[in-house]
Amino acid sequence: MIRFPDGTIKLRNPHIAEMDQDILYHLALGSGSHDLVEMFSDVRYVCMGGTPKRMEGFANFIMDEIGYKLPTGTTLLDISYLSYRYSMYKVGPVLCFSHGMGIPSVGILLHEVIKLMYHAKCKNPIFFRLGTCGGIGIEGGNLVISESAVDGLMHPYLELPVLGKMQRRPAILDKQLAHELKDLRFESDPFSVTVGKTMCTYDFYEGQGRLDGAFCDYSEEDKLDFLHKIHQDNIVNMEMESLCFAALCHHAGIRCAVICVTLLNRLTGDQVSTSKEVLGKWQEYPQMLVSRYIKQQMGLPISRPQRTHPQAMKNKCVVTRDECSHQPRMMEGLERQHLCTVRIP
Amino acid sequence: MIRFPDGTIKLRNPHIAEMDQDILYHLALGSGSHDLVEMFSDVRYVCMGGTPKRMEGFANFIMDEIGYKLPTGTTLLDISYLSYRYSMYKVGPVLCFSHGMGIPSVGILLHEVIKLMYHAKCKNPIFFRLGTCGGIGIEGGNLVISESAVDGLMHPYLELPVLGKMQRRPAILDKQLAHELKDLRFESDPFSVTVGKTMCTYDFYEGQGRLDGAFCDYSEEDKLDFLHKIHQDNIVNMEMESLCFAALCHHAGIRCAVICVTLLNRLTGDQVSTSKEVLGKWQEYPQMLVSRYIKQQMGLPISRPQRTHPQAMKNKCVVTRDECSHQPRMMEGLERQHLCTVRIP
Repeated sequence: MIRFPDGTIKLRNPHIAEMDQDILYHLALGSGSHDLVEMFSDVRYVCMGGTPKRMEGFANFIMDEIGYKLPTGTTLLDISYLSYRYSMYKVGPVLCFSHGMGIPSVGILLHEVIKLMYHAKCKNPIFFRLGTCGGIGIEGGNLVISESAVDGLMHPYLELPVLGKMQRRPAILDKQLAHELKDLRFESDPFSVTVGKTMCTYDFYEGQGRLDGAFCDYSEEDKLDFLHKIHQDNIVNMEMESLCFAALCHHAGIRCAVICVTLLNRLTGDQVSTSKEVLGKWQEYPQMLVSRYIKQQMGLPISRPQRTHPQAMKNKCVVTRDECSHQPRMMEGLERQHLCTVRIP
Repeated sequence: MIRFPDGTIKLRNPHIAEMDQDILYHLALGSGSHDLVEMFSDVRYVCMGGTPKRMEGFANFIMDEIGYKLPTGTTLLDISYLSYRYSMYKVGPVLCFSHGMGIPSVGILLHEVIKLMYHAKCKNPIFFRLGTCGGIGIEGGNLVISESAVDGLMHPYLELPVLGKMQRRPAILDKQLAHELKDLRFESDPFSVTVGKTMCTYDFYEGQGRLDGAFCDYSEEDKLDFLHKIHQDNIVNMEMESLCFAALCHHAGIRCAVICVTLLNRLTGDQVSTSKEVLGKWQEYPQMLVSRYIKQQMGLPISRPQRTHPQAMKNKCVVTRDECSHQPRMMEGLERQHLCTVRIP
């Protein structure tokens, strides 16, 4: 039993309740300095992905999808701006984070977000990772939803030295949620959706059997033998966060899913040579599926967004962010915020 | 023999030379798209740290310290802006990177930076990590230079599954460089400098024996027993990147050092509760030592900066970045750049 009857989180750490205040250092929030219940108790969906830019884009996307209206004269703000570590945007019941790259980075975030859910008394939150990956036998631009996650030695658990002893936590994902997400693919979608087993590694180069790192002691034949072998063992993609994401969410009793878009088929290459424009388009695919799930849960029609034009603007900006000629507005002390109200496609 | 006689890097990967081009994906650079020799061959010092903000600050700091002059009408640019992964600033012979958090994140960066050194034909580059850490028996606001690095089980090597087998690389640091850096402390400095052994972990909470993560299965007594035990084994600090930094640099034949400022003494606490202002000040201490080393190597006086006022400005801005009232200038497509020419203290 890891939840209270009302769906709020029962923290598996007796020390937190005894602390005067809990500083969520890497989020630049704290239970003493912020009214976390007031700020976050309505959160139901926690969405995370690698880069701040992608998650800012997702926050703007989901805002239109669910028809969330900002008060006139306001704009989204990176709540964790002062941490300089992660970015964090809130759109009604949806909380969006960037988690950086790799297990330690996503792990720190998860510890603090799980504590945030606890302090804020959020009910039955669902966590999604919207990522990128290398496909194994799947071409670039398609989706993989992880059914389970294993490490580079095919172990289905997260290992971590704790007080000098190796701790193991099973990396278990919610299979029902994975299939519910898969069922939200439309016939007209330009991508396929595969539910399968994910290999999660601690390195992008040697750790994923690439030939193009700074070091390589093996041949192309060795590499292909390995990739074909894990393919036979039903591994369909490789990325760098799912093992920790699955293990920590499962340990906290939080339903979670990992939805990644493939950037290439590793059986035919190592380098990510697709253009930035196409990669940017592909990275919207996981967002589309998660958005449909959230809309379905909220009782909204899933086949169309709730708003198709930007708030408070009669004409829609159709260029990409980098081409946008709208002068972004600046706020003192928040130079890094993108404060242009025009919708970022 | 990992270098050519002229000091350029002999890459321990035979595949790179056979490739048409090498895309340094996470740096948004490539050997086919960029003239890397033209851009980077003068680099001698590679400095990396966790956050983009800290490394942007260091780039501005080292620019004054070594008296590097930007042409009128120019400003520093985040070279890897389009990657949305790492940030990268170049100040003459000094290249500054943010590496994110944890071994996988710093590992991806190192693979690509080592390849960058190779493509650019840089001669005898020295790598520095300027980080933050928890002190073991050392109060907050002091420096630790790592003499060696071990993992959470006290193993002095980096383990990584490669093609299904565990690979081990010794995490060896340059002891001479560590002591040369220590000798650059001035009597008047507000910090002590300790050369010692560093424990590098894969997690900030349970991995470092904290009581304040989302999960904790041990008591305060268990925690203190562990911290005192490793303290007796000469561990003086804990952080999350040194093992990989040491192992990959050593394998590439690159001299390197890890200089971290302690944010707290772990023997007396877990939470980082010091104010942002004081933490910001402390994070300048590693920069001061590395700056003196670079100036010494360049034949410049080490006890004072080469320039004490901002370039092209007669009056110096003395407030912190967040308080700065100078309107940052914007360039289209570069919204995230801080383009204020006023020196950031």
